[in-house]
Amino acid sequence: MKLYHHPMSGHSHRAVLFASLLGVPCELVEVDLSVGAHKQPEFLKLNSFGQVPVLEDGDIVVADSNAILVYLAKKADRVDWLPETAQGAAAVQRWLSVAAGEVAYGPAAARLITVFGAKLSADEVIDRAHTLLGRLEGRLGESAWLAGDHPTIADVAIYSYVARAPEGNVDLSAYPNVNAFLHRIEALPGFVPFIRTPVGLSA
Amino acid sequence: MKLYHHPMSGHSHRAVLFASLLGVPCELVEVDLSVGAHKQPEFLKLNSFGQVPVLEDGDIVVADSNAILVYLAKKADRVDWLPETAQGAAAVQRWLSVAAGEVAYGPAAARLITVFGAKLSADEVIDRAHTLLGRLEGRLGESAWLAGDHPTIADVAIYSYVARAPEGNVDLSAYPNVNAFLHRIEALPGFVPFIRTPVGLSA
Repeated sequence: MKLYHHPMSGHSHRAVLFASLLGVPCELVEVDLSVGAHKQPEFLKLNSFGQVPVLEDGDIVVADSNAILVYLAKKADRVDWLPETAQGAAAVQRWLSVAAGEVAYGPAAARLITVFGAKLSADEVIDRAHTLLGRLEGRLGESAWLAGDHPTIADVAIYSYVARAPEGNVDLSAYPNVNAFLHRIEALPGFVPFIRTPVGLSA
Repeated sequence: MKLYHHPMSGHSHRAVLFASLLGVPCELVEVDLSVGAHKQPEFLKLNSFGQVPVLEDGDIVVADSNAILVYLAKKADRVDWLPETAQGAAAVQRWLSVAAGEVAYGPAAARLITVFGAKLSADEVIDRAHTLLGRLEGRLGESAWLAGDHPTIADVAIYSYVARAPEGNVDLSAYPNVNAFLHRIEALPGFVPFIRTPVGLSA
């Protein structure tokens, strides 16, 4: 399998991390976002949205980081990471939606401003990030893992951008349960870190 | 099953629509957003995020509209609506992520401004809506349905807010494939419409 990625993309890290946690070998192909390689015809054939990551497995092409997590878990028959029951799958989906929504438009967007110079309202996205962190703090006070009593792809999907939220000037110090959760992920066998960028509160 | 909803919420419509397409009877319980019923302790016990819709099925409580679609499809064993293969499930997840991301922060956010008076940048969210619509137009030029050769929960998840995008001043007239897709959804047996609000371009 080939995984098209960029080392500074949290969406990419989500996919790279899960492949590593599963122990699934992937050839990493770096897409040079700085020269717009993700908007060139060759890449747009893989993903018309022009975004990393993309997974290529023979003839099968999977775009969207959450979809890659689903693909890898199902292909490896790992119902521990993605339950097949209605209740279990819905509990995971609930947090995949948060990853694609509140995370992408909260802490990830705040980091886009400081790391990539995105023209977004910092106040709006930082405020959204803290709303999300308050909700995560509550959930992680009830349960060590987001979607049940063991790690699932829900936890993997939430990790990367929350861990690097300080780079977008989102302070994590008021969220002890969230910090403990990040450390639990980092202690999983096969964990690989998301690159650090010295910007925002991490400067 | 009880479905807590609000008739003007597109996230709620997504769940109500799919229950109807499946022919699954649900007791609809309206949550009075205008008096903040969704932020009261009784409702927050069902969904700490304070959002509709929420599905209650005996002891099982499912928050998040996409998670409700997953729950209903799996509970009814409808692999036509949600395939169980790695490739099929990933293809659906790809669009559930779009529904939770680009749809929620694009056409849904644009409509939040005009229908609910949300304080958001209209230019930013309308621009995001048109980026999304361009991508949907391309995809729907290749395939009648988003995730394969027949309708899935991906199509249901995308429908409601795209259909009412004009209420948020997002003009759909330049997207013939998107309009044809909306009509295909509306022709499905069991379809129930999303309420219209005379605001924006629909005024």
